[in-house]
Amino acid sequence: MKDRVFAAADVGGTKILLLLAGPQRDLILRRRLFTPPKATPDQVVEVIAGALTGFLEEAGLSPQSLAGLGVCIAALLDFESGVIYESPNLDWHEPVPFRELLAERFSCPVFLENDCNAAILGEASYGAARGHRDAAYITISTGIGAGLYLDGRVYRGSGGFAGEIGHLKRFGKGRRCGCGGYDCLEAWASGKGIARSAGMLWGEGDPGAGTLDTAAVFDRAEAGDPLAGSIIEQAVEDIGISLANLATLLNLSCMVIGGGVARHRPGLVGQIEEKVNYFAVPPAVRVTRVKVVAAALEPEAGAWGMYAAMRR
Amino acid sequence: MKDRVFAAADVGGTKILLLLAGPQRDLILRRRLFTPPKATPDQVVEVIAGALTGFLEEAGLSPQSLAGLGVCIAALLDFESGVIYESPNLDWHEPVPFRELLAERFSCPVFLENDCNAAILGEASYGAARGHRDAAYITISTGIGAGLYLDGRVYRGSGGFAGEIGHLKRFGKGRRCGCGGYDCLEAWASGKGIARSAGMLWGEGDPGAGTLDTAAVFDRAEAGDPLAGSIIEQAVEDIGISLANLATLLNLSCMVIGGGVARHRPGLVGQIEEKVNYFAVPPAVRVTRVKVVAAALEPEAGAWGMYAAMRR
Repeated sequence: MKDRVFAAADVGGTKILLLLAGPQRDLILRRRLFTPPKATPDQVVEVIAGALTGFLEEAGLSPQSLAGLGVCIAALLDFESGVIYESPNLDWHEPVPFRELLAERFSCPVFLENDCNAAILGEASYGAARGHRDAAYITISTGIGAGLYLDGRVYRGSGGFAGEIGHLKRFGKGRRCGCGGYDCLEAWASGKGIARSAGMLWGEGDPGAGTLDTAAVFDRAEAGDPLAGSIIEQAVEDIGISLANLATLLNLSCMVIGGGVARHRPGLVGQIEEKVNYFAVPPAVRVTRVKVVAAALEPEAGAWGMYAAMRR
Repeated sequence: MKDRVFAAADVGGTKILLLLAGPQRDLILRRRLFTPPKATPDQVVEVIAGALTGFLEEAGLSPQSLAGLGVCIAALLDFESGVIYESPNLDWHEPVPFRELLAERFSCPVFLENDCNAAILGEASYGAARGHRDAAYITISTGIGAGLYLDGRVYRGSGGFAGEIGHLKRFGKGRRCGCGGYDCLEAWASGKGIARSAGMLWGEGDPGAGTLDTAAVFDRAEAGDPLAGSIIEQAVEDIGISLANLATLLNLSCMVIGGGVARHRPGLVGQIEEKVNYFAVPPAVRVTRVKVVAAALEPEAGAWGMYAAMRR
C-alpha cells in the first residue's frame, strides 16, 4: 500500500500535465487536462483540485496520502511568496496569490515555481544535466526563456525573475519586443521572431504568427531556399551568441535545450553547440567545454522538477 | 593583547596591498609592496612571506597569532584546488599551485581567490553592496571583469572562471580581443579598447596603449571633441548593454562599479546606471530596479573580501 504520494502539475496555456508518483519516483498516474480557454486563476485551481481528487480516488488513495503538490507555470512569479505577477500564456497580468489559492484546497505542502526553473531542476535531478552542478535549461519555443541551476540549486535572483534570456540584447536592428524593449533575442530568434522575419520578407502570415509559420520557414530552409536559410542561420547565431554569453558569464558545464522549436528540429542542438563553443570565452571552453544537449524529460521536465523540489 | 590576527593581500601587476586586521575588523596595519618586475610565482610568495613576517614582528605579534592568510589576484584560478591557470597582468601562463606555495610558508589556513570575486565579497560584506543577496562587482580598467555574488555567496562556476563579462559578445565590428575571439566587450569598451579606438582615429598611440591614452580620450570628450565623445558614448552604451544583460539574466539588485577608469571618471557610474535600466528587461527593472553604484572600498575591496572570506 502506497501511503505517501506526490502530485506535480505543469500548467500551460492550453494543457495541464499532471503526474502522481510515489516516494521512489514510481509513477502512479500521468494525465493531460485541458486548460479552460481564458481561464482565471481560480478556474485553473479548480481544474487541478477537481482532477487530483478524482485521480487519488481512482488510484485507491485517500486524500490524506497526498504528501505534496508542486505546480509549475510559465509566469513571472515569486517563489517565496507564491505570487504570480504575470503569465502572458494565460493572459494574466495582475498579481495573484496563486500558491495560496492552491493551499486553500489541499492540506499538504504546496510549491509554486516558474516552468523553466522547474525544468532545469528536473533535468538536473533525473535528466540531461544529471551530475552537473552548474547548468541551464533553455526553452526555444514561441518565446525564449531559461532556468538556471547554479552551485547545485535553482537560482531565482533578487525578485525571482532570473533567467530572462529571451530579453538579452542587442540583436538585429529596430524590432520591438513584447517586453516593450527593442531588439531582444526573442524578437528575432524565437519561433515568433522567425515567423515575423518570414512574414516581412514574403508578406505572408502576420507579425504575431505562431509555430506553423516557423515550421514553414524551417521546411523552406531545408529545401534549399536561401532567404529562409539566412533567417534560420541568423536565429541560430543569435541564440548561439546568447548562450555563449551565458557560458562566459556563468562558466556552466551543461546547457539543456528544450521547447517546441528545438523538439521539432533535432539538428538545431548541434548547430547551437557549435556556435556556443565558438563564441564563448576560450579559457572557459578550454578547461570545461560547454556541453549543449537536448532535454531528456520533455515535455515532463517541469513536472519532474516539481517532484524533485518536493523530494529534496 | 591581540592573539588572533588575519592577513589579506591583493596581488597586482605592479603592487601588492597587504592588510593585517584583528577579529573585529580592527585594522592593525596597511602596507603597499612592490611586485618585482617579471616576478615568478615563487618571488611573489617570497615578497608576501617576507613582508608579513616583518610586519607581525613590527606589530609585536608572534607568527602563531596569524589565524589566516587570504590572497586575491587578477587571474584565472581554481578556488578549490588553489591553482592559478593564467595571470595576464603577471605574465603567468602555466598552471601554478599558488596556494600550496603559500601554504608551505605559513601554518595557518590559506585562501586564494580571484580579485573580482574577492572585491564583490568585500563590497557585499562591508561596502556598497551591503544588504544585497544578489550583486556583482564590475571592474572597468585596462580590461573589464566581474565578480558575482549570488544567493548570498560568491559564485565561481563549474571551472572557477565565472564572471568573464569582458568577453561578452558581440560589440562593434571585426576587432580581435586578447582572448583570441572577436568583438568582445573588452576589445571596445575597456581602457585599452578606448585607447585603441582613439589610436585608429587619430593615428597616435599604438593599439596596445594603456590608461594614459584613455584619459586623453575622456579629456577630449569632456572638452567637446565630437569624435572623442562618440568613442566614450559607444563604450558607455556597450558597457550598459552588457550590464543590462547581466541584470536581465541574473535579476541582480545591485551592481558595484570599480577599477581605474571608473575611479577617475565619477560621472561614468550614473551614465552606466541609466543605460542599464533602459536596456534591462522591464519586469525585472519594474519590480527590482537595479542599483548601480561606485565601489566603496576601493582599492581595498579585494583585500577586505579576503578578510571576509576568512571570517565567514
